[in-house]
Amino acid sequence: MAGLSTRHLLGIKDLNRNDIEKIFETADNFKTVLNRPIKKVPSLRDVTIANIFFENSTRTRLSFELAEKRLSADVVNFAASSSSVSKGETLIDTVNNILAMKVDMVVMRHPYAGAGIFLSKHVNAQIVNAGDGAHEHPTQALLDAFSIRERYGDVEGKKVVIVGDILHSRVALSNILCLKQLGAEVMVCGPTTLIPKYIGSLGVKVEHDLRKALNWCDVANMLRIQLERQDIKYFPSLREYTMMFGLNKQILDSLDKEITVMHPGPINRGVEITSDVADSKQSIILDQVENGVAIRMAVLYLLAGQAV
Amino acid sequence: MAGLSTRHLLGIKDLNRNDIEKIFETADNFKTVLNRPIKKVPSLRDVTIANIFFENSTRTRLSFELAEKRLSADVVNFAASSSSVSKGETLIDTVNNILAMKVDMVVMRHPYAGAGIFLSKHVNAQIVNAGDGAHEHPTQALLDAFSIRERYGDVEGKKVVIVGDILHSRVALSNILCLKQLGAEVMVCGPTTLIPKYIGSLGVKVEHDLRKALNWCDVANMLRIQLERQDIKYFPSLREYTMMFGLNKQILDSLDKEITVMHPGPINRGVEITSDVADSKQSIILDQVENGVAIRMAVLYLLAGQAV
Amino acid sequence: MAGLSTRHLLGIKDLNRNDIEKIFETADNFKTVLNRPIKKVPSLRDVTIANIFFENSTRTRLSFELAEKRLSADVVNFAASSSSVSKGETLIDTVNNILAMKVDMVVMRHPYAGAGIFLSKHVNAQIVNAGDGAHEHPTQALLDAFSIRERYGDVEGKKVVIVGDILHSRVALSNILCLKQLGAEVMVCGPTTLIPKYIGSLGVKVEHDLRKALNWCDVANMLRIQLERQDIKYFPSLREYTMMFGLNKQILDSLDKEITVMHPGPINRGVEITSDVADSKQSIILDQVENGVAIRMAVLYLLAGQAV
Repeated sequence: MAGLSTRHLLGIKDLNRNDIEKIFETADNFKTVLNRPIKKVPSLRDVTIANIFFENSTRTRLSFELAEKRLSADVVNFAASSSSVSKGETLIDTVNNILAMKVDMVVMRHPYAGAGIFLSKHVNAQIVNAGDGAHEHPTQALLDAFSIRERYGDVEGKKVVIVGDILHSRVALSNILCLKQLGAEVMVCGPTTLIPKYIGSLGVKVEHDLRKALNWCDVANMLRIQLERQDIKYFPSLREYTMMFGLNKQILDSLDKEITVMHPGPINRGVEITSDVADSKQSIILDQVENGVAIRMAVLYLLAGQAV
Repeated sequence: MAGLSTRHLLGIKDLNRNDIEKIFETADNFKTVLNRPIKKVPSLRDVTIANIFFENSTRTRLSFELAEKRLSADVVNFAASSSSVSKGETLIDTVNNILAMKVDMVVMRHPYAGAGIFLSKHVNAQIVNAGDGAHEHPTQALLDAFSIRERYGDVEGKKVVIVGDILHSRVALSNILCLKQLGAEVMVCGPTTLIPKYIGSLGVKVEHDLRKALNWCDVANMLRIQLERQDIKYFPSLREYTMMFGLNKQILDSLDKEITVMHPGPINRGVEITSDVADSKQSIILDQVENGVAIRMAVLYLLAGQAV
Repeated sequence: MAGLSTRHLLGIKDLNRNDIEKIFETADNFKTVLNRPIKKVPSLRDVTIANIFFENSTRTRLSFELAEKRLSADVVNFAASSSSVSKGETLIDTVNNILAMKVDMVVMRHPYAGAGIFLSKHVNAQIVNAGDGAHEHPTQALLDAFSIRERYGDVEGKKVVIVGDILHSRVALSNILCLKQLGAEVMVCGPTTLIPKYIGSLGVKVEHDLRKALNWCDVANMLRIQLERQDIKYFPSLREYTMMFGLNKQILDSLDKEITVMHPGPINRGVEITSDVADSKQSIILDQVENGVAIRMAVLYLLAGQAV
């Protein structure tokens, strides 16, 4: 089996439709493995992977770490605040030092958009972007699309609305690119202040009325409101955001058809989504988490196959 | 060999005497293993265990981690301050997310009493309580009782005094329950302010004079004074506490018989116990630490045997 | 093959020339291993190593951790701020507790000079010093000398200048001892305020003019200016330090011969060394990092061979 058309996974931009389908087929196999009593395969024995996280992320880091260990890779974790790095050493120096210790692949999260792309041009290792600023989060988009495919058999022709803070979300951008690549119709929905001006150029619809958006879609991906980011001003207020864009059971039950509800986590219950919706049968939120490990195994496996 | 009568280890409350004896016999075997050159067994190969610590604990976390690795389990560590969790995500969501990544067992420390019990009712995994608030710390009580059994051959009929801050101590409560279950006589000793009102209902004696307590007992378990907890007011002052309830060599040597000295660690030398006592032949403090790994291996091994 | 003349590696002071040469020959073998597709050897299977870091150090910790994992050792990491330790537990208690869990070797970094020596007298484990205050950092000195030997075939007779803050540097002291032991000529160069009074007694030359020092040497080891240590006053100012002791391409090209440039990392680009020098062909900075893993594998392997 040939690998991907790219040596790195810096963003969905790097992947053609054939790549994405290859990742999905490989993830199908790994998902079977993950449901066996023996969840480990020897595929990446003797590959050393460094998880370099310049931003806190327990969830994504854990998912990558489990994916790596189940591929039998050797794993080292490196957590650095961006401040400690700016204290003296450059990003390239930090990563080159880790690579000099004979590390084969780097999974990196960084607060600045484009950090992975920059790095891939200056160091000699395969880079997997685990989130770079408000730019891309490709493995999240892949696991989201994989979960839709699992639910409906195919992504092509499905109608997906992404609800929330599109402007500051790397999940939104990667999702749009991935879904469009696979032939889905995509809409974004949120307050005007949280939808970027360039959004039309990506070929997505814009809707400011949640009810209309939900009546249009097959799948609603409810983005997390990033309460911890105090630099974001939610308009007009968090309470009003919830009233206008929060998804509750009453709205869900009033729709013409049964839609599927997704959320990239962590959930703010009662803010962007109520508990009864999050825990309903229409929600595939925990499937997304489970699929995350399989997708990451597939990405690492396929990339490792084309190491130079 | 049949397993335990419980699927979780949330507290000593869950265990009957037969369970505790089965844990001790299993720990005997693992202690033999730990003293071989090859300290690893393949028992939990392909079991993934997540250590989820919502409270700092290097010592207990390390003991569990070593126990897990020597059983050949796959281990992931998750350290979270309770504040980050209250920032948005609920405990159930956090743990369900980790479980969705196909984790089999959860070892959890949490600052709130009852966190493990609550969790066990809402998520589908086996939970081992590694300390929940001032409630229980069952593996500590098991290793303490195991160390007494190692010293005297049996726990039945032994007289054990627990000295210190009984009110805020999960170690004290779990110890009382475990020792009573095994037929020991238990006394608590400390200032009135640090002994809870309900203590009589547990069937233990209360003594406010350290010398009398020590003359009565076979074993004295000197609890740690939690200097770092500023919400606890030690009465009348730390210095007076040490004068009245601190154990020094002079007191130890003046007793009618040779008692055994225990401490759950970390020790405040010169506060609840002096250095010459901690390092004396009567002290089994380091045996407790060594036995901790064997006991935790036994608990994890027996629980894993009854995974559904 | 017999082992080293010491049970611990506390400082270069513990090693005779024969020891150092044995470490280098063993590291030669491991370096070959690290350049194979399969970078692991089973040598330390069933040896448990604890990395105890009382001071932040991503780089050295990662290098030791990779060395340990490639020797197939079981690894546990313990990161503690010295403040949390001073909160109650003594260093000896902390380490004895970890040892009671059946840990075989301790790799320790500590902010106080002599911490490793102290510990080796009071606990029953093999200690490897990964940096103790301003005292010694023996594996750094070994990897530096090994990198010089790799470049020139031999260290004997080579002229090495160590430039920078000699006074606060454990790297400088260990380097001087190691290079002298191997028959190199050593000079230190820096502002008078950053060169200790006792330096003459170590048999090294002192030079305050960077250009003269560089014209004399074969190898220049440019120490890191520790910007993060606010207790150090750089004289007269950082900017003037860079003007007087910073190495740039213009100076390098104006020398009579081609010297080799080293740096223990992390680099402050533009302070002690400019980017064009750090990335030039005369720089062996990344070779030092690569050799660090091989040297640490050799040290751990040779010490483990003489465990009692």
